[in-house]
Amino acid sequence: MSRFGTLYGPDVTFLSVDKCDLDDQSTTKNCDIIVIGAPYDGGTSYRSGTRFGPQALRMTDYIPHDRLRPHLALGVDPLQDLVIKDAGDVCTPPTDIMISLDAVTESIEMITKADAIPIILGGDHSITYADVRGLTAKYGKGRIAVIHFDAHPDTADLELGQLHGHGQWVRRLIDEEITRGDRFIQMGIRGYWPGSDVLKWMSDLGMRSYEMTEIDSRGLDTCIKEAIEAVSKDTDGIFISVDIDVCDPAYAPGTGTPEPGGLTSRQLLNSIRNICMTAPVVGLDLVEMCPAYDHADITALLGNRVILEALSGIAAKRNGSRSPDAPLLQNR
Amino acid sequence: MSRFGTLYGPDVTFLSVDKCDLDDQSTTKNCDIIVIGAPYDGGTSYRSGTRFGPQALRMTDYIPHDRLRPHLALGVDPLQDLVIKDAGDVCTPPTDIMISLDAVTESIEMITKADAIPIILGGDHSITYADVRGLTAKYGKGRIAVIHFDAHPDTADLELGQLHGHGQWVRRLIDEEITRGDRFIQMGIRGYWPGSDVLKWMSDLGMRSYEMTEIDSRGLDTCIKEAIEAVSKDTDGIFISVDIDVCDPAYAPGTGTPEPGGLTSRQLLNSIRNICMTAPVVGLDLVEMCPAYDHADITALLGNRVILEALSGIAAKRNGSRSPDAPLLQNR
Amino acid sequence: MSRFGTLYGPDVTFLSVDKCDLDDQSTTKNCDIIVIGAPYDGGTSYRSGTRFGPQALRMTDYIPHDRLRPHLALGVDPLQDLVIKDAGDVCTPPTDIMISLDAVTESIEMITKADAIPIILGGDHSITYADVRGLTAKYGKGRIAVIHFDAHPDTADLELGQLHGHGQWVRRLIDEEITRGDRFIQMGIRGYWPGSDVLKWMSDLGMRSYEMTEIDSRGLDTCIKEAIEAVSKDTDGIFISVDIDVCDPAYAPGTGTPEPGGLTSRQLLNSIRNICMTAPVVGLDLVEMCPAYDHADITALLGNRVILEALSGIAAKRNGSRSPDAPLLQNR
Amino acid sequence: MSRFGTLYGPDVTFLSVDKCDLDDQSTTKNCDIIVIGAPYDGGTSYRSGTRFGPQALRMTDYIPHDRLRPHLALGVDPLQDLVIKDAGDVCTPPTDIMISLDAVTESIEMITKADAIPIILGGDHSITYADVRGLTAKYGKGRIAVIHFDAHPDTADLELGQLHGHGQWVRRLIDEEITRGDRFIQMGIRGYWPGSDVLKWMSDLGMRSYEMTEIDSRGLDTCIKEAIEAVSKDTDGIFISVDIDVCDPAYAPGTGTPEPGGLTSRQLLNSIRNICMTAPVVGLDLVEMCPAYDHADITALLGNRVILEALSGIAAKRNGSRSPDAPLLQNR
Amino acid sequence: MSRFGTLYGPDVTFLSVDKCDLDDQSTTKNCDIIVIGAPYDGGTSYRSGTRFGPQALRMTDYIPHDRLRPHLALGVDPLQDLVIKDAGDVCTPPTDIMISLDAVTESIEMITKADAIPIILGGDHSITYADVRGLTAKYGKGRIAVIHFDAHPDTADLELGQLHGHGQWVRRLIDEEITRGDRFIQMGIRGYWPGSDVLKWMSDLGMRSYEMTEIDSRGLDTCIKEAIEAVSKDTDGIFISVDIDVCDPAYAPGTGTPEPGGLTSRQLLNSIRNICMTAPVVGLDLVEMCPAYDHADITALLGNRVILEALSGIAAKRNGSRSPDAPLLQNR
Amino acid sequence: MSRFGTLYGPDVTFLSVDKCDLDDQSTTKNCDIIVIGAPYDGGTSYRSGTRFGPQALRMTDYIPHDRLRPHLALGVDPLQDLVIKDAGDVCTPPTDIMISLDAVTESIEMITKADAIPIILGGDHSITYADVRGLTAKYGKGRIAVIHFDAHPDTADLELGQLHGHGQWVRRLIDEEITRGDRFIQMGIRGYWPGSDVLKWMSDLGMRSYEMTEIDSRGLDTCIKEAIEAVSKDTDGIFISVDIDVCDPAYAPGTGTPEPGGLTSRQLLNSIRNICMTAPVVGLDLVEMCPAYDHADITALLGNRVILEALSGIAAKRNGSRSPDAPLLQNR
Repeated sequence: MSRFGTLYGPDVTFLSVDKCDLDDQSTTKNCDIIVIGAPYDGGTSYRSGTRFGPQALRMTDYIPHDRLRPHLALGVDPLQDLVIKDAGDVCTPPTDIMISLDAVTESIEMITKADAIPIILGGDHSITYADVRGLTAKYGKGRIAVIHFDAHPDTADLELGQLHGHGQWVRRLIDEEITRGDRFIQMGIRGYWPGSDVLKWMSDLGMRSYEMTEIDSRGLDTCIKEAIEAVSKDTDGIFISVDIDVCDPAYAPGTGTPEPGGLTSRQLLNSIRNICMTAPVVGLDLVEMCPAYDHADITALLGNRVILEALSGIAAKRNGSRSPDAPLLQNR
Repeated sequence: MSRFGTLYGPDVTFLSVDKCDLDDQSTTKNCDIIVIGAPYDGGTSYRSGTRFGPQALRMTDYIPHDRLRPHLALGVDPLQDLVIKDAGDVCTPPTDIMISLDAVTESIEMITKADAIPIILGGDHSITYADVRGLTAKYGKGRIAVIHFDAHPDTADLELGQLHGHGQWVRRLIDEEITRGDRFIQMGIRGYWPGSDVLKWMSDLGMRSYEMTEIDSRGLDTCIKEAIEAVSKDTDGIFISVDIDVCDPAYAPGTGTPEPGGLTSRQLLNSIRNICMTAPVVGLDLVEMCPAYDHADITALLGNRVILEALSGIAAKRNGSRSPDAPLLQNR
Repeated sequence: MSRFGTLYGPDVTFLSVDKCDLDDQSTTKNCDIIVIGAPYDGGTSYRSGTRFGPQALRMTDYIPHDRLRPHLALGVDPLQDLVIKDAGDVCTPPTDIMISLDAVTESIEMITKADAIPIILGGDHSITYADVRGLTAKYGKGRIAVIHFDAHPDTADLELGQLHGHGQWVRRLIDEEITRGDRFIQMGIRGYWPGSDVLKWMSDLGMRSYEMTEIDSRGLDTCIKEAIEAVSKDTDGIFISVDIDVCDPAYAPGTGTPEPGGLTSRQLLNSIRNICMTAPVVGLDLVEMCPAYDHADITALLGNRVILEALSGIAAKRNGSRSPDAPLLQNR
Repeated sequence: MSRFGTLYGPDVTFLSVDKCDLDDQSTTKNCDIIVIGAPYDGGTSYRSGTRFGPQALRMTDYIPHDRLRPHLALGVDPLQDLVIKDAGDVCTPPTDIMISLDAVTESIEMITKADAIPIILGGDHSITYADVRGLTAKYGKGRIAVIHFDAHPDTADLELGQLHGHGQWVRRLIDEEITRGDRFIQMGIRGYWPGSDVLKWMSDLGMRSYEMTEIDSRGLDTCIKEAIEAVSKDTDGIFISVDIDVCDPAYAPGTGTPEPGGLTSRQLLNSIRNICMTAPVVGLDLVEMCPAYDHADITALLGNRVILEALSGIAAKRNGSRSPDAPLLQNR
Repeated sequence: MSRFGTLYGPDVTFLSVDKCDLDDQSTTKNCDIIVIGAPYDGGTSYRSGTRFGPQALRMTDYIPHDRLRPHLALGVDPLQDLVIKDAGDVCTPPTDIMISLDAVTESIEMITKADAIPIILGGDHSITYADVRGLTAKYGKGRIAVIHFDAHPDTADLELGQLHGHGQWVRRLIDEEITRGDRFIQMGIRGYWPGSDVLKWMSDLGMRSYEMTEIDSRGLDTCIKEAIEAVSKDTDGIFISVDIDVCDPAYAPGTGTPEPGGLTSRQLLNSIRNICMTAPVVGLDLVEMCPAYDHADITALLGNRVILEALSGIAAKRNGSRSPDAPLLQNR
Repeated sequence: MSRFGTLYGPDVTFLSVDKCDLDDQSTTKNCDIIVIGAPYDGGTSYRSGTRFGPQALRMTDYIPHDRLRPHLALGVDPLQDLVIKDAGDVCTPPTDIMISLDAVTESIEMITKADAIPIILGGDHSITYADVRGLTAKYGKGRIAVIHFDAHPDTADLELGQLHGHGQWVRRLIDEEITRGDRFIQMGIRGYWPGSDVLKWMSDLGMRSYEMTEIDSRGLDTCIKEAIEAVSKDTDGIFISVDIDVCDPAYAPGTGTPEPGGLTSRQLLNSIRNICMTAPVVGLDLVEMCPAYDHADITALLGNRVILEALSGIAAKRNGSRSPDAPLLQNR
């Protein structure tokens, strides 16, 4: 099988990094990071359109696509310091979620087989089930913790009678013991769903959900630090799943189920960078970015920057970096 | 089973006509028309979002929802002259096209069993397969002709390996002998798809496709008249399928695969009215209306008016009407 | 009383023509045309927002505000050939329609007293009652014919119990014998309102409404010619009222009650120019332009051009012009 | 008189709660809360369009209209714990503010007569005069304190010579002694209006306005706590009036007079919830939500959530709740 | 020099055709067509933003980028029947028009040296000066006729004191005798610019401008036929310059100086196809497409289709084709 | 030379203050502040469109243009307390940056010659080179410090081979010794540009750049206070340059190169006010406001308010003011 390319539009890669073909090991060996698109949007319970998320996340940047992205605060350049390639999109037919999820899982398995960290560009949140499931081929079940940024817990059992979807993926992961409930941490939860039965299920499994009111009262940095500690115990790595709707709709209007009262863009960027600088991240996805509802590309740009902060954090963890809090021009 | 309601948002009906419940015959008997929503958008090959089509088509009108819609040119009032009810949406989970299509077909069967004409609000065009298939329970296979307004022939075989979708439904209907190729007429075709192999398949089956250049040179009225004659031979009724993208993007920006060079809104409204006034219409769907790409609701409003013109034409065919070409105030 | 200025934003004039003050005759004498804004939008039955119509109609033009607008087809320059001034807005408090209408009428009376032709920038269509009423001070009742471009007849009696509004002004004008029903001609009517009782009232009074289907079948030029002849008998002048929604929503999305199936921009521009070149126009208004629903200013620009075509036609009628159908560069 | 329904579009209710008819006591008895729409937008001094506020506030939610809204942080479900019905819109003709205000007041009187708390969906801010005036039938004059969230003090005397409007309602309430100046607290004030004469009038009456710079320096929580204490002295209840423009335009672009430098969505949601959990709220309105200027429904959604937070706070005050600051899954 | 790539965003090519490098003849030999971008937008007198035109024109298509574009009406496939490559963008610094124009001219010269037909994606209309100037290296001065689709004549002398810009390029071409005035034909002119002095200059040089009123009265097909005949006499080829604003703003809102009353999309597509099928076209540009003012990509898509119609017409002229007026499925 | 007026649209002034003509000293004497537009947008490296910034910044305000803007928190009214006039736009042809920059510099020189403080409305950031250069006629080289609010350092050397542009102006100012590097302070920097070579150049020159992570950790107020102290040493005045993209895209979507993670609107407004109240400000510009990408005018309004805060701060510094932190109605 040759590289599938992209499902919609021209075959662009994340900020024009090199392409790789998961079926051709010569193209994937030595990769630190492999980016892949999962443009599936059939799992959403409301606004569809995240199928154009991967394209938007790859392309949206006013800086030329010159493979230079020096991180000011850290002093690293993820596009230079890491070997990053883009495997294109997974072929995810919108008419059949199981075919799509299986294809995503298979791709993740191939990426981990190449000893690279997968970064998955969604698509709606249903793909995270497939993302994390794909890691089990390498890490085994129950060994990967999840830090999950989202306005919603996504712990429904069935929706319209269906097992899979963007509101059920957490339940599926835990039900199938792919992840342990007590190594699953949620950040940014708020709003009016779910009810007490689902919350009890979550509680019984030992999940930890940081609702926005708690985050407000305790401070996000404290919560993040606590979360990193909690997931680091007796696990082999951390998967970060970022639903862009964890941010307030002011910062991320381009999403399907926006919930007012969320994080600021800065809070999200800082948190992702901090986790990646500190903890053993083995994969990350950025989901629910929906260009049709965006304005002036601000949500796409935020998503692109979340990826860049993660990459920069990973580069800093490997190679060291300056302190982001120090004056920018100190000791240059 | 009780009435499902609507899949997204409040349970509004088409211009606030009464609700009916397909499972409760007391609510459907004596209906002339039953409107139903099919908010499935997983079959689209490009922009998704038609799942919000039914809501937009039901609600969008600046005239109060007073169940009065006197048609100026015809002198009929479809909401008064016909018994029209709205059965709500079919439950169409976005994750599984076959469950969705089967549910749509089942609903159409129930509507025809109640001796009502179904008017289906899409949703993407994949649902038309289910719409027409649903008519076979009453009419048998091969007895219903189709007049299909669209920019695209929708005669693909497989897309991403899938049998069903918004580009394959014509092929499926004809392959399964639900409709005869030589009683399938397309109006408004244009652009750069499909290639010669597919066109040959269409030609061999006796299909008749009016491309826009032919329509330009011969006149739309002539083509419509010719089409009505052709589909009336040895058939028991006509199903009209209206893809809103048959209109030029200037008139219908709110759609998934807009193709420049299409019909004007007037041409479409006149054509639908004329066919319904003249021919034995047994069902109609309006598909591919995608609110996320609309502006100032102009596409939603056009779709709403297509339905009203169809209803007015049906009312005029049953009860007679004034000539739409005569001065408006003549003989009032 | 000094010049009121404008109700919203800076005191701009129509394409930067000179200001005049209706209370200062030294500023209005010798004016051929006085433009005035009536930014009242409380009379609308649906989307409000036409209060910003006057500003948009005055400002929207990509050509510099250099007081040069040579009309290519006619070879006249209305801003040069006519003395045109802008009296600013009438003070129309949005909370009280009668205060607003009385103020508009008073301004029209002052403009006609200065022997200038008023061009009124709406605002919603309720102001046309005040516009035409203002002409009676000079012309008397029943002496001014109206040619009314609109998707809707606006002949309702009461709406929400109110006598005045954008759907009732025609009834008020005729009930108060300000205009004769048989000198009131409507062009572009379509859609699903009003019912037969109102149509009968219109018919009994001898009104003539050209519905779009009749226009389609007979040709707009023929209808316009017929209309000009009809209103010219036993009258002292013609008032043209242009509801921008006479155009299809594709051409004029920026309006409150858009009805698909309308005129093209070209048809409207040609018609207005033709009437003004031919008939004794004593006033014109352009109403229902609503910037909040516009896109890329295309509706504002169309409205601006309707005014320019009217002015050019008036200039051509006074001073003669080349034939608009002749090659552009012939005999230059 | 039967239920009026809604003024624009289909007769939807707030998140599909049951309808009630204020003229039919059998439908209103036992109601804790009655929601009512006041779609009047003629009182605005700038952008109109809030007439579509009630519809947007009722409908906008990505969660199904299933009458379940479990509040995560509080552990209550306002749609389950309270009896909430929706009385539809007040008939508010846009042409006459006094008819509209009188009708609103009459409706509020009927709601309080039914011993329910009114929640009014605006409309522009002029309706708050009518809202609070309606409470006097039950509570008498001067007994209800007001906490007023807004960017603007709304204490003008006359605007364009008119007594009523969205900038004058505070003055009218206090001038008519419906509320005491020293029990009127404003939160979020900023910008460049009014001048010192008006501020002096406010000061002399003992009003308390928290300008954003003070809120910044002292902390919003402190100010809110102080406000609750102040209004609780010698009063019989608190009316909360929320002008959505109290939030920064980033969070609430869909409004008529946006003023940069406002609250975040979180600050507003937290404040409303806190007041309702603590103080004896006897009514609330949410005004100045203007859909035409919204993007991706983020302002409508914020408005909807303000109502839900208020309802949740009221439910928590009545029945008790968990601490919103505690970990979400603790003791479930 | 190696291929410059694209000035903004990823290095995409027109519908993903192969890249070529004008400095590497091995990549350009045997090309029939070379597409090139000229993303210069400093020459516009009003809205800027056409610098993103090349990207939009290359990418915007809902059909997969599969290098298949079978033209339904003609039965040709331009992407298959012709060797088409994309040379990327010319480096056009926005700060200096002369550097930009010289670079464009140099690129055109290299394309013609490779015996390919250049298709230039603008950019604003000032680049057409450079486009046609580039052809003189091969064809000499005065040998190439121009058919110019536009709302505006673009025959200004100086604008803000500058020789070059999007309103002066026609004057420069003729002043420098690059093209003959009497072989320069304009189609679609309308509006209120220029004045009589400029028109006289045009007339004296023998230019022929078809204003929309003439086109209306004589028919576009007649005018086009006349134009082809006129430019074919004593010339060596025809350059077609398409300003997308020749279409009405309803069809092409995404442009800088939209003028109501223009062509329909169908008229433009038919005209371009007809000219290319009939006349010896040696180059074409598509300019003034401005994505920032577009809606739902309808203008970008129209521009993309203008290119495809031109390519299809060229392919048909070379290899023959079916009649576009014949029934689509006849003799397949 | 007479006043040039404005480059685009009607000749409006900042909030309708009086016009002045820089060539007519009788109009500029006694001015405290002279506002001038620099609608040049050819220097941008990405989205163009800031040429419409001056118009938007002058007009956008929902408060009537009544020359009253009482600052609530300070108790000053800048439009009353200062003599402010608007000199219109500088003639900045978009085709030639050097002509444009020279014209801007010349205007600034004339403003300082009139002993007024220039406030320049951009335009893109390349104009700041011309702004500060213009101050040297009065102050000499190296005597004016700069506080620069921006997401980007703008310290590139060449872009596309060009010396001037919106990313190079800082380098030009320092290279030409117009400003000292160690009196150049940047606030709000973030993102992924420039690389270490440029940062080293900045560092070597003694520049001080406050990156957002430092601002987060130390607090903005602290950083601002530190900055004021630093620039006050051995300088004769401070120029403030505000790139609106220093704010997060949520607050300022209408800009060309938005970078997530920026300041809130409140932070910017407070900072500008504080600096102007404290330090000897000799000029200010507001650049990179791009209306085509704005939504509901929120960015234009923010820009307008930045100017008003600066003016209010300047007025307060001259005449004294109340403390902005005190209760609003205290001691009125």
